[in-house]
Amino acid sequence: MENMFDVLKKTINSRISCRGFLDKEIPKEIIREIVEISERSPTWKNTQSYRLLAISGNLKKKICNELTERAKSGAEPSSDFPYETGYPSNIKRRMMDLAMDFYGYLGIDRKDKPKREEQMLKNFSAFGAPTIVFCMIPATLREWTILDLGIFLGHICLVAEAKGLSTCLQAALVSWPDIIRKHLDINENETIAVAFSIGYKDNSEIANSFKSKRVAVDEVLQFID
Amino acid sequence: MENMFDVLKKTINSRISCRGFLDKEIPKEIIREIVEISERSPTWKNTQSYRLLAISGNLKKKICNELTERAKSGAEPSSDFPYETGYPSNIKRRMMDLAMDFYGYLGIDRKDKPKREEQMLKNFSAFGAPTIVFCMIPATLREWTILDLGIFLGHICLVAEAKGLSTCLQAALVSWPDIIRKHLDINENETIAVAFSIGYKDNSEIANSFKSKRVAVDEVLQFID
Repeated sequence: MENMFDVLKKTINSRISCRGFLDKEIPKEIIREIVEISERSPTWKNTQSYRLLAISGNLKKKICNELTERAKSGAEPSSDFPYETGYPSNIKRRMMDLAMDFYGYLGIDRKDKPKREEQMLKNFSAFGAPTIVFCMIPATLREWTILDLGIFLGHICLVAEAKGLSTCLQAALVSWPDIIRKHLDINENETIAVAFSIGYKDNSEIANSFKSKRVAVDEVLQFID
Repeated sequence: MENMFDVLKKTINSRISCRGFLDKEIPKEIIREIVEISERSPTWKNTQSYRLLAISGNLKKKICNELTERAKSGAEPSSDFPYETGYPSNIKRRMMDLAMDFYGYLGIDRKDKPKREEQMLKNFSAFGAPTIVFCMIPATLREWTILDLGIFLGHICLVAEAKGLSTCLQAALVSWPDIIRKHLDINENETIAVAFSIGYKDNSEIANSFKSKRVAVDEVLQFID
């Protein structure tokens, strides 16, 4: 069992939110295998209420171009799940720390708006990933189903990593559902929950050697008996 | 890389929602380690907006007894996340199939109400697990935070499995937040999202050799380019 544990620990520690992919297609069979294995994740009464659309090629480019244009226009995100605002101050601090650490790591000055925008816009091209996977749930379902989708995506990230692929879970890619719905067959009975980009990590991309911090375990976990 | 993949696949395939635990305490250090490793899971802008309370011993017993009494009284669940009702018919079918398969596997007749209730009530004693971990998020946060919590819990299940422990993600344990709040320091600024039971699997429990089905990958995943 110790081996299983060490290997999983290694997989978890090597996974990052990839922010630079190689321009190299992924065989469909590999994505299919990753999803099939991850489907073993538990869901509420085995509902498995998610649906995935994997897009690549010209369609991917077209959607990314439109998302990028929309982002450049300064439009507010109107994702099916509204961006959240009610962060308590200790959590807001973590977000600010991340931005500070990340831009610092990239050597982008906090006040260098054009450079920050250039980096931010990379989100909308899925950081160059060959494939984007959009994740939908029925529009009539809510919290428990979102939790299940998360558990499933937790599996996806790790299975992809173990398979030699990288991922980035991205709210940015679902910021404007009208663009996605225009190109894909997703009707109003479905919520576009989130998307992830997937592909081969570009090791020459400096952002990919950035490692984000975590709060101390004792800040998150407490024992009572 | 192939080794990493095979080992993870094995971990995922051996994980089940454990429905029978040994009466054996878990060293706190092990739970701490599982949480610490799982904390590497990605969250929205590194917010890590979850808080965990691990309870065991007499406190666990007390809460379980009250939950069981409440369940026996026929009370409707009033969890912070309302139980969902809007399942499309194909998903409802999956829930029914699971119930059919599971009770069939246990040799409990569909019409044998007392036996079904006896099995159902085991949920509220956390299937005999020595420890229950309650998972909270700030009450001001919603979908994206729930998704993050799910991703984290997807890691937890797998890390626990690889460590030789079993888990069961349980909505049942958060059915009546008033009981939990009475015993634990969780105020109205926090939502009690979900809980999981954790411990050592009882291999003599027949429910633990039940393997739930999954829908075919092609029903969940579609490629478009």
